[in-house]
Amino acid sequence: MNLVLLEYEDFAHEGYVRLLGRRFEHVRRVHRAASGDELRIGMIGGKTGVGRIERIDDGALEMTVRFEAEPPAPLPVRLVLALPRPKVLNRTIAAAVSMGIREIDLINSWRVEKAYWTSPKLSEENLRLQAILGLEQAGDTILPTIRQHELFAPFVRNELPQIVGARLALVADPGGEKPCPRAVTTPVVLAIGPEGGFIERELETFREIGFTSVNLGKRILRVETVLAYLMGRLF
Amino acid sequence: MNLVLLEYEDFAHEGYVRLLGRRFEHVRRVHRAASGDELRIGMIGGKTGVGRIERIDDGALEMTVRFEAEPPAPLPVRLVLALPRPKVLNRTIAAAVSMGIREIDLINSWRVEKAYWTSPKLSEENLRLQAILGLEQAGDTILPTIRQHELFAPFVRNELPQIVGARLALVADPGGEKPCPRAVTTPVVLAIGPEGGFIERELETFREIGFTSVNLGKRILRVETVLAYLMGRLF
Repeated sequence: MNLVLLEYEDFAHEGYVRLLGRRFEHVRRVHRAASGDELRIGMIGGKTGVGRIERIDDGALEMTVRFEAEPPAPLPVRLVLALPRPKVLNRTIAAAVSMGIREIDLINSWRVEKAYWTSPKLSEENLRLQAILGLEQAGDTILPTIRQHELFAPFVRNELPQIVGARLALVADPGGEKPCPRAVTTPVVLAIGPEGGFIERELETFREIGFTSVNLGKRILRVETVLAYLMGRLF
Repeated sequence: MNLVLLEYEDFAHEGYVRLLGRRFEHVRRVHRAASGDELRIGMIGGKTGVGRIERIDDGALEMTVRFEAEPPAPLPVRLVLALPRPKVLNRTIAAAVSMGIREIDLINSWRVEKAYWTSPKLSEENLRLQAILGLEQAGDTILPTIRQHELFAPFVRNELPQIVGARLALVADPGGEKPCPRAVTTPVVLAIGPEGGFIERELETFREIGFTSVNLGKRILRVETVLAYLMGRLF
């Protein structure tokens, strides 16, 4: 946790915060913070700043806070991601958010197992927690928008073309026609398939609405790895 | 597992393999493979190819194998990595290997907790298993060399300069002087610090032997994320 993310409910009064629960435990056990220590803080959806611990005991932490700086800039990308296995979903969301991805569409695909859509990890509460963990890691404060599209074709055919608009539209695929571009200067919509990749019919649908399929060489990488690799390459 | 990695002990006779244990269980349960199915295979340290399942039952799998192609090319990078937390080590090694990193030096740093060096995850056996998982993911066959350096200064001062030689030497640091270069054409030695980063004295030691400290913008990312992000950016 490189930044303690605060919400309105944390404020006892203006400039004064009282923390309990997960964040308090983390600050106490991992940071081993003491009275007088300063912590990086951020207001959810707002500025980052510094908190000075006034009091810390076994039950809670109190600090005075001041806000100073804007959060880091986002990446100009909208991520369209075939729903990963529940086990992988949490760290993929946290990693995506930590890198500054603020728009994520989780979509269905032939190779996404039906059961994944019933996972409790898809609850709004869990997705928000994973996003917060990503923000706390990166030192960011702006929550992403995460949408779920349980039907592939209606989303890709009817909604995605408007979303793409003038943006560069790429679908990562091991059999992609060309290498993924580097250091692009335009906003991107990036689609990443499931383990095993999108099937040909799905790739065809992406191509019909203007996506270019791009490859990453011969290696097959895990979704978290592909995602970070592509962010490094594209931006 | 996108490739079943074979060793000499797996061969019943030339061109004929009998699999038990982890790989057999994976092929049976995850791939749900049946007699007659073909699997991507690779000989450890050698070529990749195709295995045709001749027999599969509750106890073992037998297949005829043929080797056809060279494994994918490695990345021209030597990774000098501050020993991560044991929990993070496994997936960092697997991810590094999956991307084609074949030389890894695990080093000490002020912010690496002493206890990490006593973790059973540092056993040769476990590191080899994690490397194999990375190879199986990527479709590669060449095991990396993983070295452990429990003392920072003797390794960095006395051994690393010879290792660097004519290679581009970079140390990733949030306070780094310049942005990380892109699409380099020379081999690289890349050092990545622990959570919290290298301390100033360590960075100074790296700079004394010719390393340039490079930043990744304002965000603080997890080691697995940084690693993939930098590979995408550098190569």
